[in-house]
Amino acid sequence: MLLPTEDLVLLHSPTFNGNEWNYVKECIDTGWVSSAGKYVDLFEKKLEEYTGVKRAIATCNGTAALHICLIMAGVNRNDEVLIPALSFVASANAVKYCDAIPHFIDSEEATLGLDLEKLDVYLNDITEIINEECFNKQTRRRIKVVMPMHTFGHPVRMDELLKVAKKYHLVVVEDAAESIGSYYKGTHTGGLGLLSALSFNGNKTITTGGGGAILTNDESLADLAKHITTTAKLPHKWEYNHDRVGYNYRMPNINAALGCAQLEQLPEFLEKKRVLANRYAEAFSNVDGVRFISEPINCKSNYWLNAILLDERYVSELEKILSMTNGSKIMTRPAWTLLNRLTMYSSCPAMDLSIASKIGSGLINIPSSITLAKNI
Amino acid sequence: MLLPTEDLVLLHSPTFNGNEWNYVKECIDTGWVSSAGKYVDLFEKKLEEYTGVKRAIATCNGTAALHICLIMAGVNRNDEVLIPALSFVASANAVKYCDAIPHFIDSEEATLGLDLEKLDVYLNDITEIINEECFNKQTRRRIKVVMPMHTFGHPVRMDELLKVAKKYHLVVVEDAAESIGSYYKGTHTGGLGLLSALSFNGNKTITTGGGGAILTNDESLADLAKHITTTAKLPHKWEYNHDRVGYNYRMPNINAALGCAQLEQLPEFLEKKRVLANRYAEAFSNVDGVRFISEPINCKSNYWLNAILLDERYVSELEKILSMTNGSKIMTRPAWTLLNRLTMYSSCPAMDLSIASKIGSGLINIPSSITLAKNI
Repeated sequence: MLLPTEDLVLLHSPTFNGNEWNYVKECIDTGWVSSAGKYVDLFEKKLEEYTGVKRAIATCNGTAALHICLIMAGVNRNDEVLIPALSFVASANAVKYCDAIPHFIDSEEATLGLDLEKLDVYLNDITEIINEECFNKQTRRRIKVVMPMHTFGHPVRMDELLKVAKKYHLVVVEDAAESIGSYYKGTHTGGLGLLSALSFNGNKTITTGGGGAILTNDESLADLAKHITTTAKLPHKWEYNHDRVGYNYRMPNINAALGCAQLEQLPEFLEKKRVLANRYAEAFSNVDGVRFISEPINCKSNYWLNAILLDERYVSELEKILSMTNGSKIMTRPAWTLLNRLTMYSSCPAMDLSIASKIGSGLINIPSSITLAKNI
Repeated sequence: MLLPTEDLVLLHSPTFNGNEWNYVKECIDTGWVSSAGKYVDLFEKKLEEYTGVKRAIATCNGTAALHICLIMAGVNRNDEVLIPALSFVASANAVKYCDAIPHFIDSEEATLGLDLEKLDVYLNDITEIINEECFNKQTRRRIKVVMPMHTFGHPVRMDELLKVAKKYHLVVVEDAAESIGSYYKGTHTGGLGLLSALSFNGNKTITTGGGGAILTNDESLADLAKHITTTAKLPHKWEYNHDRVGYNYRMPNINAALGCAQLEQLPEFLEKKRVLANRYAEAFSNVDGVRFISEPINCKSNYWLNAILLDERYVSELEKILSMTNGSKIMTRPAWTLLNRLTMYSSCPAMDLSIASKIGSGLINIPSSITLAKNI
């Protein structure tokens, strides 16, 4: 294969082939670019219809959505939140914003998500249940939430996760930042936790420039989420009164306009991403020591970021592969540095992370833009 | 005067008469709508040129900018931050996000900003300086920052403020969210504090949909601000490594594109706002018991939101005036509920707030969109 030298092949670039111009221009023409305007409401409604989750609340980004989900899940200062060590830093930061402590959990090779059997054994060992609350016997802190993350769009085994959560009295917040368009046994990711967070950052399957959303089937939590993300201002025609510490986390109308247009194209995007993923799967099927990450059983993945996993025999080649591909203007990247290895989280509690570590040393994300499906 | 019944006269609506559509269309055409792209850099450069402050860092909104300013000013958990009770809730929330405590200060009628002489007397009474740090003798907490806010675009008396700050070893963070285009003795607001925050919310003088910026003349603080607002990711071609708790506070490129176009029109907007303010000043000059708020001596105000102040004899009429004007589709609003009166801040320390209270009971903001200057 000849490597392109003229153009950079990005890891994930957005496509704007739909009504983006029309909707954004309408915002500018009417002057409704900010917090008020019809596109925020419309985007939320379309997200509800698409995901099948009762309520969606648009936010300025996915990190903001995660932060609010954790607040509403009842996370307090010094609580622990179980999150995968193999995740983007926003997962841990959102916990930290609540003055709570991330507690790092191992992943499994099949889904790249939490290993639920290992988690069960671990929690059975280190926790005790007091008055239907879970406490870490080692740190004496309450463990309030488990936050699975659907890595690169591949759903976590939610049946098993819900069982573990129930057994240990944990609230489930789904980090669905990467998984719009991904389904677990027919349910859209984010639809099984009490709350979940989506992201529409520029590198995601669909984008609003910067943006995210909170999903929940609980109407009163949804109302509260809207309230907290819009400075907790009490409704009044002219008075400025706020009843709790709130956040300026709402999505501007101009970004929501972009989102409405993108959402219209999502089914088409997903089809193309599947074509590309199938092509990758086929191409790598005969390559010794390389496994292409395919969607888990009973799941439909959005294939947001395609990934390959090098066999342990070849992990020493990882840096060379990254260097060669990026040097040839084909963007690739390794897994995120495991969160427990980042300076600010290195003293947080963590279980044995051998599989996450193994995945981390062998994983490579490869170009996944839908434009790449054009010539297949 | 006949009141319009067909159209709503908004308090402040944006105007898009420039290159908004060209720049935003370019973002959509090129696919650069998100965190990377030329408009964020350009917007920051143009802000630096316009304000004369060395460095500007664009953020997703003004609240985010305030939050980061306070972190970088060295505010730690349980520190106190001096802020006006007469301000928007974001001032207090930003303090709270640092796990610090807002300490409410009185305002003065002339500028609607902090009363510096009263503040000096108060601090002299309640504080002691230990090792060049200021401590509240009553609460035993450190007072780290004073954060003046340039109310409705009218500059605080910065010479006096800087004197008080120096005397009590306080870091100055300017809340310039409302004052782009306002000058104190020839210096743009935000240029005299160690750090300052601007806002480009939809109701501001210029807008990016949602947006803000941090200003500082300190190069190393500016670099740090950029780092913290972009998840504290260390620069590397493919690795994801972060060296501290960071935030997802960057401004998306599509919003910055809007901002670049708006900034080009700012001088024209300011002229029109001045024409409107002068017309209001003239109209109210003969109205008994009503004072139109004019720019302070030696200052140039942007007249973001025009305001009148009812004489004490007439404050009982405030609700009636608000009700009548809003009922006639002319949007008006009172001052914000004083921050010390909001449930979540009611137990925070506060000095005597009699003037803020007086202003709060008599102030009315009146329509200030530049389109209103058209027919003058």
